[in-house]
Parts: sequence; structure tokens; C-alpha cells
Amino acid sequence: MEDALKKVNTLVFDIDGVLTDGRFYVDELGHFRKGFLDKDFGALRILKKYFRIVLISASEKVNEHVGKMLGVLFYYEPNDKKKKLKELMQKWGAHPHNVLFVGDSYVDIKCTQLIPLSFCPADAVPELRNGSSVVTLKAKGGEGVAVEIYEILKPEIMRRRKHGRD
Amino acid sequence: MEDALKKVNTLVFDIDGVLTDGRFYVDELGHFRKGFLDKDFGALRILKKYFRIVLISASEKVNEHVGKMLGVLFYYEPNDKKKKLKELMQKWGAHPHNVLFVGDSYVDIKCTQLIPLSFCPADAVPELRNGSSVVTLKAKGGEGVAVEIYEILKPEIMRRRKHGRD
Amino acid sequence: MEDALKKVNTLVFDIDGVLTDGRFYVDELGHFRKGFLDKDFGALRILKKYFRIVLISASEKVNEHVGKMLGVLFYYEPNDKKKKLKELMQKWGAHPHNVLFVGDSYVDIKCTQLIPLSFCPADAVPELRNGSSVVTLKAKGGEGVAVEIYEILKPEIMRRRKHGRD
Amino acid sequence: MEDALKKVNTLVFDIDGVLTDGRFYVDELGHFRKGFLDKDFGALRILKKYFRIVLISASEKVNEHVGKMLGVLFYYEPNDKKKKLKELMQKWGAHPHNVLFVGDSYVDIKCTQLIPLSFCPADAVPELRNGSSVVTLKAKGGEGVAVEIYEILKPEIMRRRKHGRD
Repeated sequence: MEDALKKVNTLVFDIDGVLTDGRFYVDELGHFRKGFLDKDFGALRILKKYFRIVLISASEKVNEHVGKMLGVLFYYEPNDKKKKLKELMQKWGAHPHNVLFVGDSYVDIKCTQLIPLSFCPADAVPELRNGSSVVTLKAKGGEGVAVEIYEILKPEIMRRRKHGRD
Repeated sequence: MEDALKKVNTLVFDIDGVLTDGRFYVDELGHFRKGFLDKDFGALRILKKYFRIVLISASEKVNEHVGKMLGVLFYYEPNDKKKKLKELMQKWGAHPHNVLFVGDSYVDIKCTQLIPLSFCPADAVPELRNGSSVVTLKAKGGEGVAVEIYEILKPEIMRRRKHGRD
Repeated sequence: MEDALKKVNTLVFDIDGVLTDGRFYVDELGHFRKGFLDKDFGALRILKKYFRIVLISASEKVNEHVGKMLGVLFYYEPNDKKKKLKELMQKWGAHPHNVLFVGDSYVDIKCTQLIPLSFCPADAVPELRNGSSVVTLKAKGGEGVAVEIYEILKPEIMRRRKHGRD
Repeated sequence: MEDALKKVNTLVFDIDGVLTDGRFYVDELGHFRKGFLDKDFGALRILKKYFRIVLISASEKVNEHVGKMLGVLFYYEPNDKKKKLKELMQKWGAHPHNVLFVGDSYVDIKCTQLIPLSFCPADAVPELRNGSSVVTLKAKGGEGVAVEIYEILKPEIMRRRKHGRD
């Protein structure tokens, strides 16, 4: 994986089930709440100094605020996340090996087929966590996925800083 | 179970303790919130292409929104869920072996006695999870019950698609 | 314990950390929310047919609604729960052996010293769960304490129904 | 550690990930909620009779209410917690060995380097929990960190009461 990480300049995260535990809380009016982890936001604030951070979600509610809070890109795509990701990669001039993808659910499967370096939380849907082409993280969704991605990328960050590519 | 699944055309889910972890959050005004799992909703959106999905709950608050969000039938029945289920089955022309039932608590016990193919989450009340006539799932309530039901039904869905019954 | 249960006519529950997991959720205005378990309410609705159910809490917020929702007595006592319990027992004409008490925290310790048949959740403060005079339940607070108390009392309920004392 | 505790007169706690599990719940308007543990507040109410309790957080939302609820000092410091802590210590006339510090995340690392007697929850970021200069508690954030700190300080509290230094 070490060599694969050298080419990465963009980290794409799904939100629900990745930066949250997948729960959304509904009130009597049908309004939503979702829970995020302080430590994950801390990790993302460090990571965004070194990588383009992008959030793509099939859910707009609550999630639109997350991009603003973190100062990173947020895209709402309810229909076809893979198509959206391909469009964005074309816009960035990015190849699949420049991207690291993290997703957890049915709508993320096609994205993991597009991106060779794909990860899923320990409690992703069975199709992902039991598949052979996706790396299953130790962390469950909302319990430190971004912290674990930061730990994985830390040697590469150190390497880049040492080589003055920071 | 394989043969039993061939006859199923309707999936009946209790909500609290099945699609939630059984917790309801109360604020200072006495208003309710409940947490649902993104992955469970993903599984239900796939399942509703192949089965009639029905939610029956003794609680109306919050839950009425869940039926609308998923685009499936929701019935509020605070008194006698078994009676309600029998009425609905008569309306649908359904026999007990056409129905798969999932419930977790005291008010669901009579429904599991009516429906041969009944399931309960791993943390259902002892009467259900220790009983012999109900299949206890690996998932706890709100932690992927619908995902696990989808995994159980996937071979049957594959079979029907292969035989053009989709 | 079987003989001790024969004398019980009143069940006294603390709320936070017993019927909840001890968490209270605070919003930006300082308002509170707390989470309760559907199955615990189901158990309490059965238990109140056979016992006087009393909730005593040092916290009024949210908890005042719980008594109303369950149709049981709720007392707010921020200063001295043991004194309040003694007053109530005098009013009911109850002796300590007529009462079953469940508490989890520092303010409950004196009550457990008054009531011989006292229980605490598995995650009570060390003073209670490591003490010798309180029975530690298997359930953590908010994860089925009332369900477990119902399981403990079920043989006694059966006995009373058999003897027509129902 | 016994000797180190004799010099302590001030307990400094981070909030998110220490007195909470690190989760903040965001609603559709971008407003925050956080969950605190009743037992932790019980422990802090006892501890504040014997020690100066200080909360320092890089997050103001919700947390400002916590200081008021507990009747302890709260400082909001979004930029440099170590600098803030040094300023406060100068104001109090406190030396590093008079302070016990508890933190969990990236922004707390420098504080733990300043204070010899530093603790972190079991689920702190790897830099802290795998480091050699910080004591890792058994409790995870929001699951009894203040209760565990109280257990650690109890022998010292007993000693002081015995010597009339209370």
C-alpha cells in the first residue's frame, strides 16, 4: 500500500456510516440530526493541509453543514455517486490512483470498483466488508474512521514533509 | 428455511427495537426523537422492489415519518397488533406463510405466534429471544436488522430474478 | 431472594443511569434530552398491574414527563432522596421489606442502606456495584434494567396470580 | 503516583471526548447537542469540594453551559490550549505538579507535555494513548472518566480529611 499512497492527492469520504455511525435521529416533525466525532474532525483538519478532502453523500440534510464546518468540499448526489465522482475527477485532472475512497453502504459499491484504493469501516454492509477489493478498517463508522485514515497516511505525510513536497 | 422463503411476499417490521435500538429520546417539552440506521434504510429500499414492506407499531410519534421516508406502508396500532395484522392479511389475501415478521417486545409476541416465519433481534425481550418458535438474528435492534433480513432473502431474490419472477 | 420478593408491594426506581444510560444531551440553549428504552417501558407497564411503581429523581428536567407517560408516581427530590423515601413509606404504611429499590449513583447510596432489597445496574458507580449489600444486575443502565427486574419478579407474579392475590 | 497526587490542587479537564464520548449531534440548522454522563457530574460535584476544577475546550457550543451547570470554571480556547493553561497557572500561582490534566485529542497533546500528571481516556487518539508520558484510563470518553479520576483521588481525599486539611 505504501507505493499506492505516494500517488494520492485526494481523499473522498462518504458521510453517513463513515463519519457517523450511520444513525440519523428523527424528531416528531421529521427533522434530522446526526452525530459526528470530535477526533475525526481533528484528524480531517490536519489531513486537509496535505490532501484535497471531498465529501460526497446521497443525503443532503445535516451533511451540507459538515463541509462548511470543516472547510472542505461537499457534494450532494442522491442518484449516482460513481458518475459524480468521475465528473469531479475529470474536473480535477485526477486519475483513479490519485484518489483514496471511503464508503460503507450499497450506494458506495460502484465507487469502490472505480477507485483501486478503497476502504470501508468495520461495520460496512457485508458486500463491502466481505469483498476482496476493499480494505476493511478496524474502526466502525463514526468511531474514528478519519483518525484511522490519518494514521495510515501519516508515514506518507512524513515522507512528503521530509522531501519538501509539503 | 429456504422453502419457507419461497412463499413470502410480505415483510412486516415492528419499528422500535427493530429498526431502532429501542431508545426514544425525550426533551424538556416531552417531545420524541428516535435513531434509524442509514444501512437499514438502504436494505429496505432494495427489498421493497421485491416484497410488500409493512411497518406496524404501537407508537405513532416519529414512526409515521418513517413510512413516508421509505415509501412503504405504516400502520399505527396501539392496542392489538395481532388483530391488525390479521385484518391486513385478509385484505391482501395473504396466508401466514406468505408473511415474514420481525418484532422485539412484549406486544409482538402474539404476532410471532400467528406467523410461522418470525424473527427477533439479538436483544429482544427474553420471552422472544429464548423462545423456540422465533429465529433470533445476530443483529441487535437498530444495528442492522433490515440488512440481515436482506442477507437472508438475497438467495431467494436471486432465484426469483433467475426465474424471471422479478 | 424468593421469600424477600413475597413481601414486596412497591418498586422504587431512580431514573438517570437506571431507566437511562445516564447520559443527558445538552443543546446550545442548555436544554436537556434523555433516552429511554421501549422494552423497559413495556416491562413497567406490565409491572404496574402488580406493584406500586414510584420514580424518585434528583433531576426534574425530562423526568417529570416519564411519570406521566407511564402513568406512575414521580417525585423530584434534589437534596435528600433517603428522607423523601422515608416520608413516602410512612404515607404508604410501608416497611423497608415492602420496597424494592433500584439506583446507580452517589445520591442513591443512602437509599440502598435503608432498603434491604436493593439493586443497581452493571455500570453503577463503584461504591454500589462493588458493595456487598446491593445486588448488581446484568443490565447496564438504560439497557434493560426494568426488563431484568420484571424477569426477577415474574415467578412471584405467577405465584400471586395462582393464589388469586392478583 | 501516590506522592504526585499529594501536590495536586487543580484538576483540568478537556470536555469533548473526555466528559463526552466525543460525539456532537448536528441538526438541519447546524445547531449542536452533546451528551454528558450523570455519574460524571456526580463525581465532579464531590471533587470540587477538594480541588479547583477547570474546563478548557476548543469548542464553545454547548460546553459553556457545562461550567455553569457544575459551578466550575470554563475557558474557551480555540487556538492554543497550552498557552491558555500556562496563563491560568501563572494567575493561580500553580506549578505543573499542582495540576492534574485530562485530555483526549490532537489539541491536548501539548498540554500533556506541560503537565507531568496527565491522563487520557481509553479511546484517546493513538498519539496520546500509545504515548509513554500519559496515563491511559480504563474508561472511554463519556463513559465515566470523571468517576475514574475520583476513584484515583479518593485515597488522597481520605488522607487530607484525616489530616484536617479538608
